[in-house]
Amino acid sequence: MRRTTIFIVALLPLAGCTAPSGTEAVTTGDKKDTAAVIIAMERSALDRWTKGDPSGFLEISAPDVVYFDPSLERRLDGIEALTRLYESVRGQIHIDRYELLNPKVQICGDAAVLTFNFISYGPEKNNHWNCTEVYRRRDGHWRIIQTHWSITQPFK
Amino acid sequence: MRRTTIFIVALLPLAGCTAPSGTEAVTTGDKKDTAAVIIAMERSALDRWTKGDPSGFLEISAPDVVYFDPSLERRLDGIEALTRLYESVRGQIHIDRYELLNPKVQICGDAAVLTFNFISYGPEKNNHWNCTEVYRRRDGHWRIIQTHWSITQPFK
Repeated sequence: MRRTTIFIVALLPLAGCTAPSGTEAVTTGDKKDTAAVIIAMERSALDRWTKGDPSGFLEISAPDVVYFDPSLERRLDGIEALTRLYESVRGQIHIDRYELLNPKVQICGDAAVLTFNFISYGPEKNNHWNCTEVYRRRDGHWRIIQTHWSITQPFK
Repeated sequence: MRRTTIFIVALLPLAGCTAPSGTEAVTTGDKKDTAAVIIAMERSALDRWTKGDPSGFLEISAPDVVYFDPSLERRLDGIEALTRLYESVRGQIHIDRYELLNPKVQICGDAAVLTFNFISYGPEKNNHWNCTEVYRRRDGHWRIIQTHWSITQPFK
């Protein structure tokens, strides 16, 4: 993965994923709060990632996280495999600034789906990304259970 | 999107996403059933897609679905936008066979995260994909609220 740092544009449209049946009611205020928490967690991890530190993502990923990025032959399963991948690039990624574009959070009970487009600005070129993160709340803590990074229009 | 048909390999490892706090308990049996339902829905839609019919996906996508694929400049939001995209390719996609590889379903209350790798076999070349689908259950029906298709190792 080559992600890239610093400038963040964060418009925050909330998706219309109302409280699913079988869970407690979720008010609009609760949803806004949750969306803000999720986006802040993602930004914090990205800020560290773009300075070469993958621990921000590792600390908020669940044991059963699954992961896709364009460098891999197939889906990667579990925090141990993700840790091996991230440790292999520790200290090697330095991004001047990034834009996190148009984040949307769809909340369904204790699951939250964050999607956004992303631009990393590097010394040689800028990279454009699509990203989906699925967070799960357990014992009051949100953790990532699915990450999918891909190149926007890779063959353009 | 270029997806491709018919032969499906379906090993079905269930993710360790236990019942989240605040929702009803989910037994292992329930989880297996849900995973089987989700994967069957995806296969059914893929079978139609690979014969040029996008309605299979449209019929199981929620009004607030969000969508990424490698042809798009940015995330696409909502069933109307997805319908326009899919109608633009109706009848144009014909895939000989496909493999749906190693599907995993992570269930969190009324959300289910399906991830898999995918190979489409066409007359000119084979394409390898990463895919994440997030399904949401409402009123007893599962519908897709997030789709992310990307190319596996696009620059290889």
